Amino acid sequence: MAAFVTIVGEARVLTDESACEQYGLDWTRFYAPDPSAVLLPGSIEEVQDIVRLAAKHKLAIVPSGGRTGLSAGAVAANGELVLALDRLNTISDFNPVDRTVRCGAGVITEQLQQFAEEQDLYYPVDFASAGSSQIGGNIATNAGGIKVIKHGMTRDWVAGLKLVTGTGELLDLNRGLMKNNAGYDLRQLAIGAEGTLGVVVEATMSLTRTPKNLAVLVLGAPDMQAIMHVLATFQSEIELSAFEFFSELALEKVVAHQDLPRPFETVCDYYALLEFEQPDDQAMDDAMRLFEHCMEQGWVYDGTVSQSLAQAQNLWRLREDISETITPWTPYKNDISTLIAKVPDFLAEVEAVVNKHYPNFEIVWFGHIGDGNVHLNILKPEDLPIDEFKIQCGEVSTWVFEIVQRYGGSVSAEHGVGLLKKEYLEYSRSPVEIEMMRGIKKVFDPQGIMNPGKIFDL
Amino acid sequence: MAAFVTIVGEARVLTDESACEQYGLDWTRFYAPDPSAVLLPGSIEEVQDIVRLAAKHKLAIVPSGGRTGLSAGAVAANGELVLALDRLNTISDFNPVDRTVRCGAGVITEQLQQFAEEQDLYYPVDFASAGSSQIGGNIATNAGGIKVIKHGMTRDWVAGLKLVTGTGELLDLNRGLMKNNAGYDLRQLAIGAEGTLGVVVEATMSLTRTPKNLAVLVLGAPDMQAIMHVLATFQSEIELSAFEFFSELALEKVVAHQDLPRPFETVCDYYALLEFEQPDDQAMDDAMRLFEHCMEQGWVYDGTVSQSLAQAQNLWRLREDISETITPWTPYKNDISTLIAKVPDFLAEVEAVVNKHYPNFEIVWFGHIGDGNVHLNILKPEDLPIDEFKIQCGEVSTWVFEIVQRYGGSVSAEHGVGLLKKEYLEYSRSPVEIEMMRGIKKVFDPQGIMNPGKIFDL
Ligand SMILES: Cc1cc2nc3c(=O)[nH]c(=O)nc-3n(C[C@H](O)[C@H](O)[C@H](O)COP(=O)(O)OP(=O)(O)OC[C@H]3O[C@@H](n4cnc5c(N)ncnc54)[C@H](O)[C@@H]3O)c2cc1C
Ligand SMILES: Cc1cc2nc3c(=O)[nH]c(=O)nc-3n(C[C@H](O)[C@H](O)[C@H](O)COP(=O)(O)OP(=O)(O)OC[C@H]3O[C@@H](n4cnc5c(N)ncnc54)[C@H](O)[C@@H]3O)c2cc1C
Repeated sequence: MAAFVTIVGEARVLTDESACEQYGLDWTRFYAPDPSAVLLPGSIEEVQDIVRLAAKHKLAIVPSGGRTGLSAGAVAANGELVLALDRLNTISDFNPVDRTVRCGAGVITEQLQQFAEEQDLYYPVDFASAGSSQIGGNIATNAGGIKVIKHGMTRDWVAGLKLVTGTGELLDLNRGLMKNNAGYDLRQLAIGAEGTLGVVVEATMSLTRTPKNLAVLVLGAPDMQAIMHVLATFQSEIELSAFEFFSELALEKVVAHQDLPRPFETVCDYYALLEFEQPDDQAMDDAMRLFEHCMEQGWVYDGTVSQSLAQAQNLWRLREDISETITPWTPYKNDISTLIAKVPDFLAEVEAVVNKHYPNFEIVWFGHIGDGNVHLNILKPEDLPIDEFKIQCGEVSTWVFEIVQRYGGSVSAEHGVGLLKKEYLEYSRSPVEIEMMRGIKKVFDPQGIMNPGKIFDL
Repeated sequence: MAAFVTIVGEARVLTDESACEQYGLDWTRFYAPDPSAVLLPGSIEEVQDIVRLAAKHKLAIVPSGGRTGLSAGAVAANGELVLALDRLNTISDFNPVDRTVRCGAGVITEQLQQFAEEQDLYYPVDFASAGSSQIGGNIATNAGGIKVIKHGMTRDWVAGLKLVTGTGELLDLNRGLMKNNAGYDLRQLAIGAEGTLGVVVEATMSLTRTPKNLAVLVLGAPDMQAIMHVLATFQSEIELSAFEFFSELALEKVVAHQDLPRPFETVCDYYALLEFEQPDDQAMDDAMRLFEHCMEQGWVYDGTVSQSLAQAQNLWRLREDISETITPWTPYKNDISTLIAKVPDFLAEVEAVVNKHYPNFEIVWFGHIGDGNVHLNILKPEDLPIDEFKIQCGEVSTWVFEIVQRYGGSVSAEHGVGLLKKEYLEYSRSPVEIEMMRGIKKVFDPQGIMNPGKIFDL
């Protein structure tokens, strides 16, 4: 440790229990944190020095962002060094022509969103943990969120990336260029690599035009197939910035626990939340026409539209508060995706298999269905002991991932693989692909010190 | 060759001189074609069999698309086997909900554009060679074109990719999913790899909404800085689908040779061509207001707007016909990029160095300046012998790339590296990066048979 103290200073090497607990875990609570130390470098050079020293002594490093990850990517449970990027939190070099800005890896997602707002611009990657997650963590997990249907994933906003590899080399990838076809785009590899290829130390992030006057529509539908018709109908004419869905059970719980009114009286099996820009009156006229068309077709039973920003926010809460609302039921959670067109059949198959074996399980569905991403949540029956529930959910996982595999879907739509889904990676990726990932890791990290054991075993 | 005949049939193994000439070259004409044979597989399995056989005997393969490439990526000048994808040209499995469609690698870009149109959708990657280039070639070069400012590069439209690696393994990457964070996104590596990591055999391509009523505006500006102000002004309010520029010299030549009228009488140093959607009258009112603002600021001296589709097309020709127009001057061409904000200074530096050493060289500038991509064209003075011109241009290249490097730009914005820019790759990529590219190539192609000698030497 003395050598690390020399690099970052004594106050930046934490070994006390509380720091190790705090920095050794992410939002998943399945693992006992056990890092050997927490290092808080203050510059890119310090990160390089730490990695070089660790490589020399073959010490494992876990890069650590906001630790809001949901797949145990940032967990340090095996005596690893936690390398926390908190102090690299500067936003600088705003370039109004290119609409880019340089961010230290430790910049909080919300900090970037606010910076953009101050420049009359917009950073569109957003989700419930944006107040704590870091840009470095967002890049390492290729975070998605609620605006993907229009704005894509974090990947689409990374114009440049500085990565410290497993040998301590600093790669300055793409430097903010919009067009650059000079050789392999290594930046793309580092995005979504969950810290296994190196430490993201800095990024040049793109910003975009602020949306004009967003309107929110919540519609009730008889079944999932109807929801898909609604999606297709609206998407053919309107550029949607969000298309979320949730089930009646999800709505019921949110309304009961969050002191929110139902969007309308009619009870429906599923609900869709749509968001779009209203630069002028035409946009809402179009939306109302499409809404009526969906009603006539029997795809929609009822609906409501926001008349103000406050109403729009309340409608959003019906969707965004689900996760928090169901937490007391210690739900089994799964973040999966298929082709958008296959979502209804996929959901039906998953429900069928769960209902067949565990008819007493309550399933809460919600998610970013406009991009094929559904969040499966199974609530623990009150009388079932948690350990038994976990064992039963292990079985459920296997069934679900078998269906995912048959549908050509993904075992992790947006949360990454980390430790939590490592054993299921093969349901989405072939053995040859996984072997190639190992090969690529060796190129970036020949000693295997960068977040070892995450995504796949070496 | 007998073994290859067994795989694809006698008629699909071409060794005659005319086939070798045709298939051994792309649009660059600097190399003498010399393939050992041209193979025309009719299925993915045949591609795999060819690659396996070639790997066994360590025979080099050049994947070959429409051969419209401008960097000699598809050149076979060293006895390689040309593997031409022409016969894998089927479009199938259109999915209207996901708005994706499956394309054989040999599908012509224009064929996909037309298919999209028939579905009332739009494939936005477009450029002058779209009538001959193939989807496989577009992916292998990550082709850009004239709509990048709004719609991005080919990379952004590849929802799934089937790649045959250098060992003959078939990778089925991402399968059309919009969200998939399960492990490294290997698809991204294959995009832009110019055939050095394997053969793209099939892709699932995304389509989008058809633009509504595109309007074209051509504006004349006193200098490049003014052009940048125009860009910022319009971009702050309007979603531009194109922002191109060209110099007076370019316009002069096009008008003289293509029987086109000048856009307006006022002669300006530089011109910008803007394109945007007009879903309603508001859009044009906004554009006119911004135009007037630019006039008041002195950034624009004159301008014209398309009143019809025909007029829009004629205005586009002022930009698109430049390349063909200047061909008789056997121009030296370079496709480079910098940050958008740095373009004016960059242009000025390049002009200064060329003018200083070769005051008699005529420089024609044009390009996709809305994304920082400029095409530098130097016309050969009539009295200068071509060989001498080429030697002098070799010097120019070094100066230009030194400036590119100083600006953190790219030696190849969209055309790729191939053979033509291989020796200049180090001006854009560090030695460590190039070494890592070599390492990655080994993972995909351990024998080094896939397009060897392109992008970098092994
Ligand atoms: C309430 C809630 C809602 C969420 N909603 C969404 C959602 O809608 N969409 C979504 O995609 N995710 C969502 N998430 C998951 C999570 O917020 C994202 O994955 C986020 O991007 C993680 O960022 P972080 O900084 O917290 O990363 P961490 O949890 O600290 O780390 C995540 C992974 O990245 C690595 N890492 C972190 N920083 C770096 C770095 N600088 N260099 C290299 N590797 C690094 C870690 O080692 C780890 O493997 C949600 C989480 C919560 C708690
Ligand atoms: C007049 C003109 C204008 C152009 N304008 C533009 C422009 O605006 N923007 C732009 O980006 N480009 C432009 N280009 C360049 C060129 O058209 C593009 O690079 C195009 O994508 C090449 O496609 P192709 O099928 O012709 O590829 P080819 O020239 O056949 O091959 C290009 C590279 O890809 C590899 N390759 C081809 N097919 C496959 C495959 N199936 N699997 C693996 N590797 C493969 C080849 O080995 C080679 O390295 C232009 C070219 C011309 C002639």
